[in-house]
Amino acid sequence: MVIYDFSNLMEENIGEHGLSSLFFKEKEDLLQTVDRQIKEQARLGELGFMQLPFDQPEIDKIKRLAAAARGKWENLLVLGIGGSSLGAMALHQALNHPFYNLLPSEKREGCPRVFFADNVDPELINGILESIDIKRTLILVISKSGKTAETLAQFLLCLDHIKKVGDPHQQIVIITDPEKGPLREIVKEGFSSFSVPPNVGGRYSVLSPVGLVPAALLGVDIDALLAGAQAMSKRCETLENPAYLFALTHYLLMQKGKVIHVMFPYAYALRGIADWWRQLWAESLGKEGKGPTPVKAIGVTDQHSQLQLYMEGPYDKVITFLTVKNYRTEVNIPSFFSDFTDIAYLGGHTFNQLIQAEQLGTEAALTKTGRANAKIILDQIDAFSLGALFYGLELATVCCGFLMDINPLNQPGVELGKRYTQALMGKSGFTTEKEEIENWFLKRPLYQV
Amino acid sequence: MVIYDFSNLMEENIGEHGLSSLFFKEKEDLLQTVDRQIKEQARLGELGFMQLPFDQPEIDKIKRLAAAARGKWENLLVLGIGGSSLGAMALHQALNHPFYNLLPSEKREGCPRVFFADNVDPELINGILESIDIKRTLILVISKSGKTAETLAQFLLCLDHIKKVGDPHQQIVIITDPEKGPLREIVKEGFSSFSVPPNVGGRYSVLSPVGLVPAALLGVDIDALLAGAQAMSKRCETLENPAYLFALTHYLLMQKGKVIHVMFPYAYALRGIADWWRQLWAESLGKEGKGPTPVKAIGVTDQHSQLQLYMEGPYDKVITFLTVKNYRTEVNIPSFFSDFTDIAYLGGHTFNQLIQAEQLGTEAALTKTGRANAKIILDQIDAFSLGALFYGLELATVCCGFLMDINPLNQPGVELGKRYTQALMGKSGFTTEKEEIENWFLKRPLYQV
Repeated sequence: MVIYDFSNLMEENIGEHGLSSLFFKEKEDLLQTVDRQIKEQARLGELGFMQLPFDQPEIDKIKRLAAAARGKWENLLVLGIGGSSLGAMALHQALNHPFYNLLPSEKREGCPRVFFADNVDPELINGILESIDIKRTLILVISKSGKTAETLAQFLLCLDHIKKVGDPHQQIVIITDPEKGPLREIVKEGFSSFSVPPNVGGRYSVLSPVGLVPAALLGVDIDALLAGAQAMSKRCETLENPAYLFALTHYLLMQKGKVIHVMFPYAYALRGIADWWRQLWAESLGKEGKGPTPVKAIGVTDQHSQLQLYMEGPYDKVITFLTVKNYRTEVNIPSFFSDFTDIAYLGGHTFNQLIQAEQLGTEAALTKTGRANAKIILDQIDAFSLGALFYGLELATVCCGFLMDINPLNQPGVELGKRYTQALMGKSGFTTEKEEIENWFLKRPLYQV
Repeated sequence: MVIYDFSNLMEENIGEHGLSSLFFKEKEDLLQTVDRQIKEQARLGELGFMQLPFDQPEIDKIKRLAAAARGKWENLLVLGIGGSSLGAMALHQALNHPFYNLLPSEKREGCPRVFFADNVDPELINGILESIDIKRTLILVISKSGKTAETLAQFLLCLDHIKKVGDPHQQIVIITDPEKGPLREIVKEGFSSFSVPPNVGGRYSVLSPVGLVPAALLGVDIDALLAGAQAMSKRCETLENPAYLFALTHYLLMQKGKVIHVMFPYAYALRGIADWWRQLWAESLGKEGKGPTPVKAIGVTDQHSQLQLYMEGPYDKVITFLTVKNYRTEVNIPSFFSDFTDIAYLGGHTFNQLIQAEQLGTEAALTKTGRANAKIILDQIDAFSLGALFYGLELATVCCGFLMDINPLNQPGVELGKRYTQALMGKSGFTTEKEEIENWFLKRPLYQV
């Protein structure tokens, strides 16, 4: 199961930059209040993500789609951005081969290669089109609102290509709000579709069809994923649970100036989890002039990039190692050059031992120098663990938001940029924004060198 | 050429969180002092990276290697971590196709597919071995010290595999110190090699053989790369240059609490540049309890992940857009569904217009809300621009380090973790560290849930 180890956040182990050993007792009432707030909002249906592990009306339909797709499509193209792609990317990167798209079809067990179009960079878009045969591609269009400019532009492009060589109604599946938005209207023209529950926001939607449909198409065991989330949900029924403790420790350390929160997986496969969490944490908690800045680092790679800063920079960070007890393979380090002391000690060990020694060595060094660091421990990387991890971190985010007394479910700050963009793209109804761009922004004093 | 636009760092445009319009005048003396310090250290040969654009004794040898490799190898496997991989990865990602490894050989013009082994995760290592035919693979072993545990472990593994099926002396090329370290000793057993100048540290080595050899093997025009660096070097002969201004503005804004520095490329191809810069900035400046935390974000993707925080979180950031005037391709957005106002405005535009409107819209929104943001503008993504960018950011880093009165060339903070790791791996001579791990670290109070 998932363990949260916060030993190295404690004063006892790291000195003045840590938490008092009484912190939980001291904050138990506060946490109880937040717990009641969470349960009340859940009861009112405002925290839809908490229902997803238990209530998936479309699960059989998802499985049927995945079963029918096996061996049928060469490629899966996922059109979605932010919460509409990060969850599926995290699942794919964690559970499939690191060079999945290079594998022959039989090693993918008939699952398609996958391309995530999570940007509108024309070079990326063109690169995808050059890499796939559109006739042999299944396309998921994912946008909860049905209005996401990036995803809609890609949809228009794909539709145009498919109309020339294939059948749009066979090749395009839409995942959007069950009732609202232009994409839902378009579904009525004969497209297959799945629904995002209206009370589940993008960044909390990985366990809804937004994450489950692409995951199932890519061979992920979505039952195990949901079972892991269920298990974590059960474990979070008592106050002293990993999600609340993650939230509370980070909340308290923020008050001590530790406002940069690093997620540091020691597994290449978990890099997407860090990306997914980075959205969850930033978009949920960054508002009202407050909010931690989440940072993704990758062990061991970033020991050779960020560790100097983490060891000797300001005491402004909490670093969370995301570790794995058992990797899915073992690779030996052979023995050669035994005359060289800088080489000889490696031979006879395994890469597994090396990565774990590096993690532990880094953890010990950070602890020794009084740097706040915690650890999330997974037994192994599988769908069940990831389900538990997703759910736990989502709950932790809401808990931390309530501790901070902000609303972790909205994202009002992204609207202004969107309006300026729409004005620049000539969408009607944005005269104020167009005027601002033309008469203020483009005429402001420039400083260039 | 490369332009640094700092308009939106100025009080005039963003209010109280910006810099006075007199900042350059006020700090001209300080900058002059730093400039003299840089020139003096350069004269003493301590800033080797400043010579790299002009002095490349091995350039012809690099080109011969690359020419001979064309069409010969199916794969290039780069063993290197941190400064020994980030530069080459950045160049490859910027200048080659976004799905390069999926291209047929002819579209790669005979250049090999490439795998960067920048981690020791056994799942990644195994994944690479499963994806390549080792007989048809050229291997670069890159470590300046010749002692890097991760790279040496991979080297041992590859050597073992090649000995069984191929010829190690034909397939392995070593890039290391010209005289010191175990890898240089091993070269004497008959391996090809290139030298990293002793006065060029890992994170400043992209324009040395560390970056040039893999880049040339992957088809990069290394003459143009060096020419770009030369041009930037020339441009930095006067005080008011992009490198110094980047350094000075960031230094002054750090003093105003803006300690998180975001590099935000609006081009998928430049994601590796942000990773490369992240090491350069963190490892150079994070010491003595000081130092900014660099963050990589990708436009437009991270508008749907981090923008909420950037717009409404604390005023603790400087965001640098890295923009491109001319993308290397143009992709049209077709017109369909003209009845829907949320879709109709997109059709008839290009993806190029969309990404640039999103960048400008985001920039205007950040500026409107008083958020410090700057912009590095490239005409296009090519080897010349990247050479200029690499050189400019390296010089900016040294300049910022001197402004902060720290040594931007060392990284003393990474040693302790390495020693603990070596103790855990059973290397002799680490009894103190072994004892500390066993008697302190593994026996400290644990807090888990």
